[in-house]
Amino acid sequence: MSMTEPTQTTIIRATDAALLKQDMGARASVIESTIDALLPPTKGGDARLIDAMRYATLGGGKRLRGYLAVTAASLFGVPESQSARVAASVEMLHAYSLVHDDLPAMDDDDMRRGQPSTHRKFDEATAILAGDALQTRAFEILAAAHTHASADVRIDLIQSFAEASGAAGMVGGQMIDMEGEGRALPLDEVRHLHALKTGCLIRYSAEAGAILGQASADLRKRLRAYGANIGAAFQIADDVLDATATAEELGKTAGKDEASGKSTFVALLGIDGARNEAARVTEAAIAELAPFGAQADRLRDLAYYVIERRN
Amino acid sequence: MSMTEPTQTTIIRATDAALLKQDMGARASVIESTIDALLPPTKGGDARLIDAMRYATLGGGKRLRGYLAVTAASLFGVPESQSARVAASVEMLHAYSLVHDDLPAMDDDDMRRGQPSTHRKFDEATAILAGDALQTRAFEILAAAHTHASADVRIDLIQSFAEASGAAGMVGGQMIDMEGEGRALPLDEVRHLHALKTGCLIRYSAEAGAILGQASADLRKRLRAYGANIGAAFQIADDVLDATATAEELGKTAGKDEASGKSTFVALLGIDGARNEAARVTEAAIAELAPFGAQADRLRDLAYYVIERRN
Repeated sequence: MSMTEPTQTTIIRATDAALLKQDMGARASVIESTIDALLPPTKGGDARLIDAMRYATLGGGKRLRGYLAVTAASLFGVPESQSARVAASVEMLHAYSLVHDDLPAMDDDDMRRGQPSTHRKFDEATAILAGDALQTRAFEILAAAHTHASADVRIDLIQSFAEASGAAGMVGGQMIDMEGEGRALPLDEVRHLHALKTGCLIRYSAEAGAILGQASADLRKRLRAYGANIGAAFQIADDVLDATATAEELGKTAGKDEASGKSTFVALLGIDGARNEAARVTEAAIAELAPFGAQADRLRDLAYYVIERRN
Repeated sequence: MSMTEPTQTTIIRATDAALLKQDMGARASVIESTIDALLPPTKGGDARLIDAMRYATLGGGKRLRGYLAVTAASLFGVPESQSARVAASVEMLHAYSLVHDDLPAMDDDDMRRGQPSTHRKFDEATAILAGDALQTRAFEILAAAHTHASADVRIDLIQSFAEASGAAGMVGGQMIDMEGEGRALPLDEVRHLHALKTGCLIRYSAEAGAILGQASADLRKRLRAYGANIGAAFQIADDVLDATATAEELGKTAGKDEASGKSTFVALLGIDGARNEAARVTEAAIAELAPFGAQADRLRDLAYYVIERRN
């Protein structure tokens, strides 16, 4: 992969929501069909397991994580045919985390994206196993030779992915979240918890583009920091949405955080305070994109989109 | 890694149980301390998660899978310091599968190796997350540079590991097992189910030694077939033990299979028929070791040990 390090100077423009929407839609369909192709077809004795894996992963979502990976990779000239597999892998890992999070012993959510959650559609045992197998498949896809990346690049992806999603990342964050329920956490703990629970995987998604593109250490670090800040903005915006949007807009129960006494950014900072915090980390994310010039406009648009979305 | 392809002719000797016991004990302590070193220490906000991961993985078991990996690798001169990490990784994956298998929505087992199962010692949410994080850590360890294997070898390990443990392997087998409960399965389905559920990971363990040792395709295939047969023997012996051993010998409830109406080798073939089937696959396993000569004597001993053990 030859690197096309951008040399343009910074151009920060007004966000272009229409272009972003179009681009996200186009990328999301490619990611969707890539996931479809990378999951086994339904047949044989384990049909129910495969059904559940497909149910949990296909047919929904904006594919934020996958979009980040594909778009960051495109900064280095990595073709979508290659980065879409990495995007599919991170979306499968995200899906597994939602399936397990929704279980009765965890958040006990009956609905997900306006549909029955996986354990409601199937049963708990199937949901546990489908989540387990989705995690395995996510790693398997990164290792597969048809990622078209060298073995060194694939190892780099797998290590960063594991770091972001394991006990020191996403799963560690879920654990802190479970333990924090019902007691008031201070702001720095809430920040730390979300940096792990949702931030790490979003950060990895942007960084994965840099890894695929064999970016310089500096550009990789910048995309990593961009991703971390996008992750923070995303979570704060989620808290604001939970407090302000209707259930119809969200496709899930609204006002759930306040009802459960959860420590959120809104509970700690108020709605305006939380919006200011979201704006602050969004600006920090955008600042990291300076060396990429206009090539990174979609990533800038995305930063604004994350805090302005209504669901 | 230089290959030391054995040139001796086949020597099948009487099994040496004492030597095997000593060797397994020595390897098990190395594997135990390697797992200990590769799991994070307990501290910080996720202490409970780490505690549960350590509880589920450390302090128990004969480390059959790890022993296979280390011993198969030693046939090619791979030092224990290197293969023990791969052994630790497969034992972590095995531990995650037991933690999830024991959950109330799955087999609902309160005890494991004479101790409370992880969700009984902690709680269900912690057990789900600890299992999830153990799977992640298992892949992370294989990817880590300090495995001292080349990136190509590490990728090969990860691909084979994922194949053995995902929807087309271990997890797929667990699903078929769950779905088969309460109805009579024919013998070929029982064989298939166990080949997936327990066989794949045991097969991988032996094959991992060949991958680490960069074995020829033929020797790798032989170790893979040896492992698959050992896996089958192990499961049949398990069914026989469940029907014949006491709870005290097993460290868990005995006679559980018959009580739950499970399709086992014993139910299908009777105790003597099951013992004959175990002997048959054990001989098939040993036949694969011919090219390794006396160097593979511990693997031969292990084949007999698997069907003669009392717990």
